Amino acid sequence: MPQITVTRRYRFCAAHRLHTDHLTSDQNRAAFGKCNNPNGHGHNYVVLVTVRSGGSRELFPLNQLDRVVEETIVRRFDHRDLNQDQEFTAATTTGENLVKLIWALLAPKIPAGSLVKVGVIETRDNYFEYAAPAASR
Amino acid sequence: MPQITVTRRYRFCAAHRLHTDHLTSDQNRAAFGKCNNPNGHGHNYVVLVTVRSGGSRELFPLNQLDRVVEETIVRRFDHRDLNQDQEFTAATTTGENLVKLIWALLAPKIPAGSLVKVGVIETRDNYFEYAAPAASR
Amino acid sequence: MPQITVTRRYRFCAAHRLHTDHLTSDQNRAAFGKCNNPNGHGHNYVVLVTVRSGGSRELFPLNQLDRVVEETIVRRFDHRDLNQDQEFTAATTTGENLVKLIWALLAPKIPAGSLVKVGVIETRDNYFEYAAPAASR
Amino acid sequence: MPQITVTRRYRFCAAHRLHTDHLTSDQNRAAFGKCNNPNGHGHNYVVLVTVRSGGSRELFPLNQLDRVVEETIVRRFDHRDLNQDQEFTAATTTGENLVKLIWALLAPKIPAGSLVKVGVIETRDNYFEYAAPAASR
Amino acid sequence: MPQITVTRRYRFCAAHRLHTDHLTSDQNRAAFGKCNNPNGHGHNYVVLVTVRSGGSRELFPLNQLDRVVEETIVRRFDHRDLNQDQEFTAATTTGENLVKLIWALLAPKIPAGSLVKVGVIETRDNYFEYAAPAASR
Amino acid sequence: MPQITVTRRYRFCAAHRLHTDHLTSDQNRAAFGKCNNPNGHGHNYVVLVTVRSGGSRELFPLNQLDRVVEETIVRRFDHRDLNQDQEFTAATTTGENLVKLIWALLAPKIPAGSLVKVGVIETRDNYFEYAAPAASR
Repeated sequence: MPQITVTRRYRFCAAHRLHTDHLTSDQNRAAFGKCNNPNGHGHNYVVLVTVRSGGSRELFPLNQLDRVVEETIVRRFDHRDLNQDQEFTAATTTGENLVKLIWALLAPKIPAGSLVKVGVIETRDNYFEYAAPAASR
Repeated sequence: MPQITVTRRYRFCAAHRLHTDHLTSDQNRAAFGKCNNPNGHGHNYVVLVTVRSGGSRELFPLNQLDRVVEETIVRRFDHRDLNQDQEFTAATTTGENLVKLIWALLAPKIPAGSLVKVGVIETRDNYFEYAAPAASR
Repeated sequence: MPQITVTRRYRFCAAHRLHTDHLTSDQNRAAFGKCNNPNGHGHNYVVLVTVRSGGSRELFPLNQLDRVVEETIVRRFDHRDLNQDQEFTAATTTGENLVKLIWALLAPKIPAGSLVKVGVIETRDNYFEYAAPAASR
Repeated sequence: MPQITVTRRYRFCAAHRLHTDHLTSDQNRAAFGKCNNPNGHGHNYVVLVTVRSGGSRELFPLNQLDRVVEETIVRRFDHRDLNQDQEFTAATTTGENLVKLIWALLAPKIPAGSLVKVGVIETRDNYFEYAAPAASR
Repeated sequence: MPQITVTRRYRFCAAHRLHTDHLTSDQNRAAFGKCNNPNGHGHNYVVLVTVRSGGSRELFPLNQLDRVVEETIVRRFDHRDLNQDQEFTAATTTGENLVKLIWALLAPKIPAGSLVKVGVIETRDNYFEYAAPAASR
Repeated sequence: MPQITVTRRYRFCAAHRLHTDHLTSDQNRAAFGKCNNPNGHGHNYVVLVTVRSGGSRELFPLNQLDRVVEETIVRRFDHRDLNQDQEFTAATTTGENLVKLIWALLAPKIPAGSLVKVGVIETRDNYFEYAAPAASR
C-alpha cells in the first residue's frame, strides 16, 4: 500500500548546555567542547512532525495535531532552558535525546500507528530524526 | 541493493478553496475554517518528484522527466484555480488529495518502478508526501 | 545620525488575478499573460515591515507593531481573493499596487517618521518594495 | 559615485533573557512576556556585516574582515549567555542593543568609512539593522 | 518622493578562478588561497536586479526586464567559465568585479534612472552589491 | 526497533563538465546540452551525511564524523574541478555518480551499519541521494 503523510513544522527557542553529571568537569569539556560552556547557549529549534494521512478522510486531523504539539511540545520548550526547566534528568540535552523525548511525549496523544517520524533541526547544519520502525508503518 | 534517487523541484502558483458539497455551509466552515472563505485564497506550490536512478545510465533521463512534469502537472495547475479548473470532482483540494492526484497523473507516464515519491509543499509549514510502498521500491 | 531599524516578517495566503477593466480581453491577455487566467491563481505572500528603532527605548514597541499589522493587513488579506474581497477598485492587483496599498493602510497607524519600508515577496523570484523618501528618514 | 559593497554572513548560538533591573519582576514580565522567563532561552543568531569595496583593489580585504569578526564577535558571543557572559550592563539584550554593541565593537577595527551596515537575524521573523548615516557613506 | 522598486531574481552556474597576471604564482596563491587552485572551481550564482517602478504604469515592464537580463547576462554567463569565456581581461573574477560588469552590461539597455541596484550572491555567506549613487535615484 | 539518525550538512564549491569519452562531440552535446560547454561551469555543492545514532551513547561521535567528511570529501572536492582533479575516470561527473563516489569514499571510514544515507544538492532544483538498502538499516 502506498503511504500518504503530512509533515507540519513547529518552532521553539530554547537555551541548553551539553553536560552530564557522570563526567568530571574536564571530561565534560573534552566530550562537548564549547557546547559545555558554563552559562549555556541556545538555538532556534524547528520540530517537524510527520503523521500518516488517509487522504480526504484524515486519520488524525491537522488542527488536532497542531493542538497536541502546541500543548505538549511548544508550550513546554519555548523560551525555556532545556537543562533547568525540563525532565532531562539522566541524559544530556543532545539533539538525539531531544528528538527521543519529543517522540515519547507525543506518541501517547496520537492514534496508534499515525505517528511516522519526528525531526529536529538544531542549527542550519544539524538535523536529528526519530522514525517509527518500518514494520509498524 | 542500495538505491540511488534523483529529486527534481517544480513550482506552480494556484488558487484554491477547501470546501465539499457533502457538508452544509456551517459544517464546511467548522471543518475548514478560513480555508473555506467563499472567494478562495492561493499558494506558491512546490512539487518534488523523486525517481530511481541507475547511475550514469539513468533509468529515466532527467530532461524527459522535466518534459513529463511540465506537460502533465505544471501546465495544468500553474496560474489556475484548483477548484474551478481541475478534476477534483468528488474531493476537496487538500494537500493530501493534491499529492494523490499528482501521483496518479504522473505514474502512467513514467516507467514502472521508477517513480518513488511525490512531495508537495503548500506553505512554509505544510508538506504532503505520497510514497510508493516499500515492497515496490 | 546612524539609524537602527527593526524588520518583522508577516505572511498571508491570497488569490488574485491580473486584469484591468480599462483594457479589452485580448489586451489584458497580451499585457498579463497567464496571470490573466479567468479563475485566478494565488500566492503565499510575505510582508516585511521595517520601522525605525530608538534602541532600548523603542519608538514603536514591536508587540504594538504586530497588533497593527495583524489587524490592518493580515486579517484583511489572509485567505482572501485580492480582486474580489479588496478595494483594488481602480488598479490591478500587481505587487507594486499591493505594496502601495499596504503602506497606505499602515502609515496612519504608526507614529510619524517611524515607518521606513514595506516589502512584499510574491514569489521566490519577485520582490516589491515601498521606501519612505530618504529626506524623511 | 556608485557604491560597491560586500556583505559577509557569520553565525553564533547564544542564550539570553530580556530583563532589566530598572523594572520590578511584574513590570519585566509585562514588558517582555515569555522572553523574560527566568532561566532564559536562546537563538541561532546570524550577523551580516557590510563593508564598502573598491572593486579589485578592496579597501578592506575580506579575509581580514573575517579575522576581525571572528576575533571580535564570534569568539565573544558563540556558545555564550548574552546576559551573564557579556557587557550588557545597563541594557537589556534586545536585538536593537545587540546590533548596536556589535557595531561599536567592530567600528574601531575597520578603516574609517568602510563599515556600512550591520544586521542581526534573531529568528526567522525578526531582523535588526544598524546603518551608518547616509552622509558618511 | 517615496520610491517603489521591483527586484527580480535570476541565476546562472559558472566556473571561475581567482588569479591575476600582475602577480607571480606565489603572490596569487598568497592573495587568493584555495580560490587560486589551477583548474578552478564554481558557483551557483544568483543575480538580483532592482528597478524603479511607477506603480501600475511600470516605467520598465518586468517581462522586458526579464528579456534583457536573459539575453545580456544569463546567456552570457550560464554554464560558462568566467575566466576563459568572458571579457575579464584586466581584472580578476571576484564578486566585486562581476557585479560591476553586470551593471555595465545592463545599464545601456534599461531606461536612464530605472536601474537602482544589482546584487550577486556567490555563496551562502557572500553577497556583492552595486548601487546607483543616491543622488541619481 | 525505531531508528534515530543524525544528518550533518557540509559544502564544497567545484567546477565540472558533463562529458564522456564514449560519445562523439555531437553526441555529448545532444546528451548533456549546455552542461557539456567546453570550459565547464560549477556549483555550490551541499553534502548531507546521515548516520545512525544510539541516542546519548552515539555509535559514531559527530566530531569524528566531521573529521572524516572534512578529510575525505571536503578537502578533496572543495575549490576543485571534478573532471580534471578527480578520479571520475570511466564516468561523467553527474550528480548520481558524485553521490555514489562520496558513499564509496566514506563507507570504509565509518563503522559498518552506521552510514544510512548520503545526499547531494547540486542546484536549488536538483537533489541526488544514495541510501543503504533497507535490509541493512
